[in-house]
Amino acid sequence: MELQLDALLAANAAYRRDGFHAAPRTPQPARHLVLLTCMDARLDLFRALGLAVGDAHVLRNAGGRASADAIRSLVVSTHLLGTREIGVIHHTNCGLEGRTEDELARTTGVADVDFLAFADVEESVREDVDAVRACGHLPSGVVVWGGVYDVDTGALTVVAAP
Amino acid sequence: MELQLDALLAANAAYRRDGFHAAPRTPQPARHLVLLTCMDARLDLFRALGLAVGDAHVLRNAGGRASADAIRSLVVSTHLLGTREIGVIHHTNCGLEGRTEDELARTTGVADVDFLAFADVEESVREDVDAVRACGHLPSGVVVWGGVYDVDTGALTVVAAP
Repeated sequence: MELQLDALLAANAAYRRDGFHAAPRTPQPARHLVLLTCMDARLDLFRALGLAVGDAHVLRNAGGRASADAIRSLVVSTHLLGTREIGVIHHTNCGLEGRTEDELARTTGVADVDFLAFADVEESVREDVDAVRACGHLPSGVVVWGGVYDVDTGALTVVAAP
Repeated sequence: MELQLDALLAANAAYRRDGFHAAPRTPQPARHLVLLTCMDARLDLFRALGLAVGDAHVLRNAGGRASADAIRSLVVSTHLLGTREIGVIHHTNCGLEGRTEDELARTTGVADVDFLAFADVEESVREDVDAVRACGHLPSGVVVWGGVYDVDTGALTVVAAP
């Protein structure tokens, strides 16, 4: 299979020439916002939510789950870099929805990983919003909400209010 | 501080009306590519690398580190969803570069988190490329490369060849 790297570098040269605008030189997001979402290829949150370069931290993993690593990143984001609002966004047609850990261990051939699969996408959002709120590591006053992104329509629906 | 959620929902309504195009309805990325990068607000990889909706998985955490959760996601991405090329991209002016674990524990007030801080961004990329290659959980034939994104110029430079 041909590597994508050369095509990415060519696109990057065009971006530097025609598309790039430097944001203010600070790692602190201008809108004090951090989003936790899935790695899914159909989620372009900058476009879908009107974010500009420099606006918001974006955390992404398989499922958009509130893993220990997501909590580590949220600690850095809030305490160190000034974010005060956390949005947890899962999505329809996710590769982890409706799977079981046993099935994923069989399919991947990897036995010693907790895949964080889930049965229902609205439930998984609410579970992870609760997990973030209860983690005990975030500054007081940080607000957490949760939503589901529909990959067929582009719509974000709030399922866990701030 | 005013919540961003209402502004995000308004931008999302505009996106659904004017910007949204559905990708093929599959969680498998069209270009069989997965990128691991930092949560930093200045990294809009879709634009910077010419990615379309549906092209590539994007993993993001504080630093773009090859954490256990990143490996979990890479297992799902490769074994379950058909990606065959992994790009690890860290960036200049990162909030974790040049910090120490002690300093971060003091600054955040959180003692029991390993922050995965690093001294030098090119070294951290090579370290994480090596960690992904050595994780023992990926299908044979998967290619891994690493690069540094310059937030002041928008340029991606390869520092670990495929």
